[in-house]
Amino acid sequence: MSERVNEILSWYAGENPGVLTNLARIMMTGALAGTGRFVILPVDQGFEHGPARSFAPNAAGYDPRYHFQLAIDAGCNAYAAPLGFIEAGAAGYAGRIPTILKLNNHDTLSPDGKDPIPSVTGCVKDALRLGCSAVGYTIYPGSAGFKSMYEDLAEITHEAKANGLAVVVWSYPRGSGLSKEGETAVDISAYAAQIAAQLGANIIKVKPPTAHIEQAEAKKVFEAEKIPTATLADRVRHVVESAFGGRRIVIFSGGAKGADEKIFEECRGIRDGGGFGSIIGRNSFQRKKPDALKFLATVMDIYRGKA
Amino acid sequence: MSERVNEILSWYAGENPGVLTNLARIMMTGALAGTGRFVILPVDQGFEHGPARSFAPNAAGYDPRYHFQLAIDAGCNAYAAPLGFIEAGAAGYAGRIPTILKLNNHDTLSPDGKDPIPSVTGCVKDALRLGCSAVGYTIYPGSAGFKSMYEDLAEITHEAKANGLAVVVWSYPRGSGLSKEGETAVDISAYAAQIAAQLGANIIKVKPPTAHIEQAEAKKVFEAEKIPTATLADRVRHVVESAFGGRRIVIFSGGAKGADEKIFEECRGIRDGGGFGSIIGRNSFQRKKPDALKFLATVMDIYRGKA
Amino acid sequence: MSERVNEILSWYAGENPGVLTNLARIMMTGALAGTGRFVILPVDQGFEHGPARSFAPNAAGYDPRYHFQLAIDAGCNAYAAPLGFIEAGAAGYAGRIPTILKLNNHDTLSPDGKDPIPSVTGCVKDALRLGCSAVGYTIYPGSAGFKSMYEDLAEITHEAKANGLAVVVWSYPRGSGLSKEGETAVDISAYAAQIAAQLGANIIKVKPPTAHIEQAEAKKVFEAEKIPTATLADRVRHVVESAFGGRRIVIFSGGAKGADEKIFEECRGIRDGGGFGSIIGRNSFQRKKPDALKFLATVMDIYRGKA
Amino acid sequence: MSERVNEILSWYAGENPGVLTNLARIMMTGALAGTGRFVILPVDQGFEHGPARSFAPNAAGYDPRYHFQLAIDAGCNAYAAPLGFIEAGAAGYAGRIPTILKLNNHDTLSPDGKDPIPSVTGCVKDALRLGCSAVGYTIYPGSAGFKSMYEDLAEITHEAKANGLAVVVWSYPRGSGLSKEGETAVDISAYAAQIAAQLGANIIKVKPPTAHIEQAEAKKVFEAEKIPTATLADRVRHVVESAFGGRRIVIFSGGAKGADEKIFEECRGIRDGGGFGSIIGRNSFQRKKPDALKFLATVMDIYRGKA
Amino acid sequence: MSERVNEILSWYAGENPGVLTNLARIMMTGALAGTGRFVILPVDQGFEHGPARSFAPNAAGYDPRYHFQLAIDAGCNAYAAPLGFIEAGAAGYAGRIPTILKLNNHDTLSPDGKDPIPSVTGCVKDALRLGCSAVGYTIYPGSAGFKSMYEDLAEITHEAKANGLAVVVWSYPRGSGLSKEGETAVDISAYAAQIAAQLGANIIKVKPPTAHIEQAEAKKVFEAEKIPTATLADRVRHVVESAFGGRRIVIFSGGAKGADEKIFEECRGIRDGGGFGSIIGRNSFQRKKPDALKFLATVMDIYRGKA
Repeated sequence: MSERVNEILSWYAGENPGVLTNLARIMMTGALAGTGRFVILPVDQGFEHGPARSFAPNAAGYDPRYHFQLAIDAGCNAYAAPLGFIEAGAAGYAGRIPTILKLNNHDTLSPDGKDPIPSVTGCVKDALRLGCSAVGYTIYPGSAGFKSMYEDLAEITHEAKANGLAVVVWSYPRGSGLSKEGETAVDISAYAAQIAAQLGANIIKVKPPTAHIEQAEAKKVFEAEKIPTATLADRVRHVVESAFGGRRIVIFSGGAKGADEKIFEECRGIRDGGGFGSIIGRNSFQRKKPDALKFLATVMDIYRGKA
Repeated sequence: MSERVNEILSWYAGENPGVLTNLARIMMTGALAGTGRFVILPVDQGFEHGPARSFAPNAAGYDPRYHFQLAIDAGCNAYAAPLGFIEAGAAGYAGRIPTILKLNNHDTLSPDGKDPIPSVTGCVKDALRLGCSAVGYTIYPGSAGFKSMYEDLAEITHEAKANGLAVVVWSYPRGSGLSKEGETAVDISAYAAQIAAQLGANIIKVKPPTAHIEQAEAKKVFEAEKIPTATLADRVRHVVESAFGGRRIVIFSGGAKGADEKIFEECRGIRDGGGFGSIIGRNSFQRKKPDALKFLATVMDIYRGKA
Repeated sequence: MSERVNEILSWYAGENPGVLTNLARIMMTGALAGTGRFVILPVDQGFEHGPARSFAPNAAGYDPRYHFQLAIDAGCNAYAAPLGFIEAGAAGYAGRIPTILKLNNHDTLSPDGKDPIPSVTGCVKDALRLGCSAVGYTIYPGSAGFKSMYEDLAEITHEAKANGLAVVVWSYPRGSGLSKEGETAVDISAYAAQIAAQLGANIIKVKPPTAHIEQAEAKKVFEAEKIPTATLADRVRHVVESAFGGRRIVIFSGGAKGADEKIFEECRGIRDGGGFGSIIGRNSFQRKKPDALKFLATVMDIYRGKA
Repeated sequence: MSERVNEILSWYAGENPGVLTNLARIMMTGALAGTGRFVILPVDQGFEHGPARSFAPNAAGYDPRYHFQLAIDAGCNAYAAPLGFIEAGAAGYAGRIPTILKLNNHDTLSPDGKDPIPSVTGCVKDALRLGCSAVGYTIYPGSAGFKSMYEDLAEITHEAKANGLAVVVWSYPRGSGLSKEGETAVDISAYAAQIAAQLGANIIKVKPPTAHIEQAEAKKVFEAEKIPTATLADRVRHVVESAFGGRRIVIFSGGAKGADEKIFEECRGIRDGGGFGSIIGRNSFQRKKPDALKFLATVMDIYRGKA
Repeated sequence: MSERVNEILSWYAGENPGVLTNLARIMMTGALAGTGRFVILPVDQGFEHGPARSFAPNAAGYDPRYHFQLAIDAGCNAYAAPLGFIEAGAAGYAGRIPTILKLNNHDTLSPDGKDPIPSVTGCVKDALRLGCSAVGYTIYPGSAGFKSMYEDLAEITHEAKANGLAVVVWSYPRGSGLSKEGETAVDISAYAAQIAAQLGANIIKVKPPTAHIEQAEAKKVFEAEKIPTATLADRVRHVVESAFGGRRIVIFSGGAKGADEKIFEECRGIRDGGGFGSIIGRNSFQRKKPDALKFLATVMDIYRGKA
């Protein structure tokens, strides 16, 4: 166990040793083991966006085993997916990589317009029988359905931690309380990180923040306090600080498929702003495997300060 | 146990031996035993469409015993029905054919317009006391009621599997999130199969897909990746691939009563596209029994590659 | 036990002996004991319509004991009422007549417009402590509240049967899914009987069907299959067939107070169409007792083929 | 389903369809399928007598898979074993033969002298997750520990049947209430069968009875009523009659390893006395497999009246 | 994951992926990772024998952290201890080594003479909140208290596995059913391994067997079948075979403190007989740490075939 990992674990001293064990497992796995940095492979896009949009660009990814193997071969810290994908590989890959069971999911067929609420599609008992290290859960701060999401998460968090599982929260501002631009505004991203942290999340996933500031009251403070927002590193620094002064693990989503160099640049910004890492789905599994391995190796090099 | 059945069971290695036992029972029953192909008789139309529409064309079908006997005589793999129909025959036909208790149902009297939600009309304990091999459940992806359906299914799935029962999901896109044409669009059928698989379904039932593509984002991918959709076999292949790269059992509904040759042609398309079989209700029980037996024998011959 | 009663019990072979025992008790009680025909006294009108409307025409009926005694003296098979009425007489009349505890009820004060949902006003445990033979439950197919009603009934049915109680379902089509005329349409009555049977009802109560056909899809089938609907007997025959080919007990409500001869004629139609009997409330208790006894004696004679 | 199987199932009409289904599965499996006769392979001797005594004579039997395969290849109706042995093969042999999870077991190390009580070593939930058709349980009528055994069995029986599992009871008189000779006395064997039947056993296993009569009061009746006990067939006839007049399945243990012809002769006696079959462990698995298959084939021929 | 580890995991195909994950974790940790061999550090002697007897020889061992660190530094596969010791280090050493929570313990103060029964001193929920990979439990076959021990273990095993934890059973014959010499007799050790395996143990710990044979019936078989018992390797081979034909992990205790070379010789015997490894407490922690590390390194070299 590296000093950095011990330092990070010290932030979670209020958690039981089971939760710490699973956080440590995630931090001590893969190419970034011991660095306190994270690259996690999430594959919930089949559910969230549909199978062809997710897997046709690299058809090997229709097979659930592909993603377990990719996460292992690339040296990811963990692999996150919904119930079906985890069930389909958990026996065959038992013990080879920490898994995160995503307990709620949403699809693009559902006519829930501007205020979506994902469905709870699994339970903590499933995570235990499948040998997972954590449960994952998505909240949409800004959606009219926030209460349902926060309250379900509160129950899941309580049960997960009582059983020694870590809690990973995808905090994605979205809904009729926000403008489209506001979904990734720096004040909103920071707020989303704070809400997830306050809900007890051990690991928080947000989107890389833009320089937009959504809330008028927030804008006043950003100006008064001269909070820097010019660079991504500035904004990441603010988001990370907003999650308990940097004492919670905050990772950033890799987003839709884009040019590699653009993503690498983003990762550098995350790294330089003190972000803990990336959770990169589509940019990982929507390309041929050798290419994916090379791509992820560069991302990991960036987080190790070598690229 | 044939090699093919063992291969299929290997895809479900994450399930307990009870679930595997019931999947094996279904695969080792009837005329298609051991082939890994399925013809299942479902009779929920009395509930879903009303009794006269369902049974008047062959009035013997008002009697619940008729369908047990038909499924047995035709050599089906299993018989699926709501609580009342299963209760009415489960003692008399105990042990003669695997049964699937449909745990939710919908009727055409209900004024729920474009976004229907079936009612949960039975429970896992019912399936156990009635000697069923599986529970069945219908979801309508695209309906505004998706959350209620997915969450009830998640709970039922957990309880069913813990007690060694397999889970069969009817995934029928429908509701205000979709156009009428979209309900059977190839992208939507594939998405419906993916959602059911991610929810933990062991056996997935979808409708045969048309060449229509509903979602603009999906259309782009189908074109970019040149996913073939010209023939039914092409489209079935895409749907099956969308259910975990072919590692989940996907069967196709027989639909409304139609000309036999048209149905046979459809079954050939399903077979040629790698579909696992058919679940054929109205086309089976809405004709005189000798005719039904002949019809189903041909369907089974098709799945055996002999017609 | 008569042969007919044994035959009827054989239809319920999937039920446990407790349910069979209570069905047998109802069939072996009163003037129609052993005939497989039923005349049941229901008195839920105090709750459903208000006390004066229900009991002022024969004020003796305000007293709950009156109805127990009436049902016994008239030779009814069973007496059905809500919790309060059963509690008020269950000790005094213990063992003298099978009772059916109506577990949901509705009143005319409730502002629920076109889509009513009765309240669950008792539980299976109440029925057990009160020595009841069955629980009763009302569903309104066609109401927007169908899901809530069907799901509560599913739970009650499971618990009632597990505890050896029979389940009686009042299936009264009603709500915004139907026209007013449609509530008693022959296709809808038949559908209502089918739904109750599929939900696991042991005894089904519907209203006598009219010759109206509500659903366009059903109309096509009635015409194509030449299903006779000219006489009440024709229509009853269709409804009874729709309840599992005649293998479920279907009884018919006596309706609002009317001329005796009209009711007798209706009973003859029910009898001739193979209906199992009548459940007659207002026409029984809203007249002086000697008159009621004479009235019910004639009804029973009709079901014995003697009038 | 043969007529004989239907006849046997009719004796259990009080059970739910789940229990009937599992009884039917056992009766419709293997070389004796449909005959209403049974040959069951039990392998609990590793626990009961120790591994070397059980498996050294045919060392292939140390491997749990051996017994699943032997039972399948020999055409047994079912395979019975303790938790560990069932867990070790249930996934690999899923669906290939009905299994009976023995829920209590005893060993020869335990210093419980003349009044042994087996330990409860598994639960009904285990049987469900492992896909078993029945639970098995041993009682020692005559032991000072009878109350503990009967009461645990009562609870297990209730839970097993509610979940659709059949109940198999090994009823082995033993303990300080009996002489050594009395353990297999005809009056005691008959009494043991009666007790198991009264405890709700669906299938009863006793030892082949000797002509000894243990209880003085019983002796008087045997003499007064001239109950024949001269031949094994006579005694088996009495034991079978003692289990509800022949309306419960009573099978007989094969006992310690002995000369084949002696065992065959015993099986003929069981058959001629109306016994339902044999449960033969040591004589099956303590010899090389080809020999075991030949031996069991002869036993099955005897029960088919062909040897 | 090595091929050997995959092979071992295949023996446990009936377990859920959670149990497999924890077994894999233990097999993939430490100096023997991937070899399928085990060296586990158990420290329950403070409870079992008292603190001075246990820790005075190397007073650093009074501190619970010492043992975590020792197990990690030595490259053990896992560390096993009672609740207090695990609680005292689980947070500080979270994720650094798999832990086994010993759920029952016994002390030398208890006046339970020849038939001891350990107390259940923790629960499965404790193991989950402490991040353990397995629960441990001791049975004393041969003790008059066997029933209580086996039945508690059966319940713990069910709950542990349902929650994805592996089960380690210390099977130590002891009690009035055995002579002192019999406690380590080869027939008794083999029997103890068999009992633990039948009770569902994933990992079984027994004492190295002596050439003594305790049971007369067993002796006959050992002689008749010419089971070799001359060398420790011979006897270990018999014990391992007795645990499901070698398809269960059987490890051997290191026993009381002795001369190193004697222990090394013993380990070689265990290795050569196909034993899976050693669980060595007193010989590890009752000496200075550098010496302990050297000692354990040699033991591990032996299991790697290098010493």
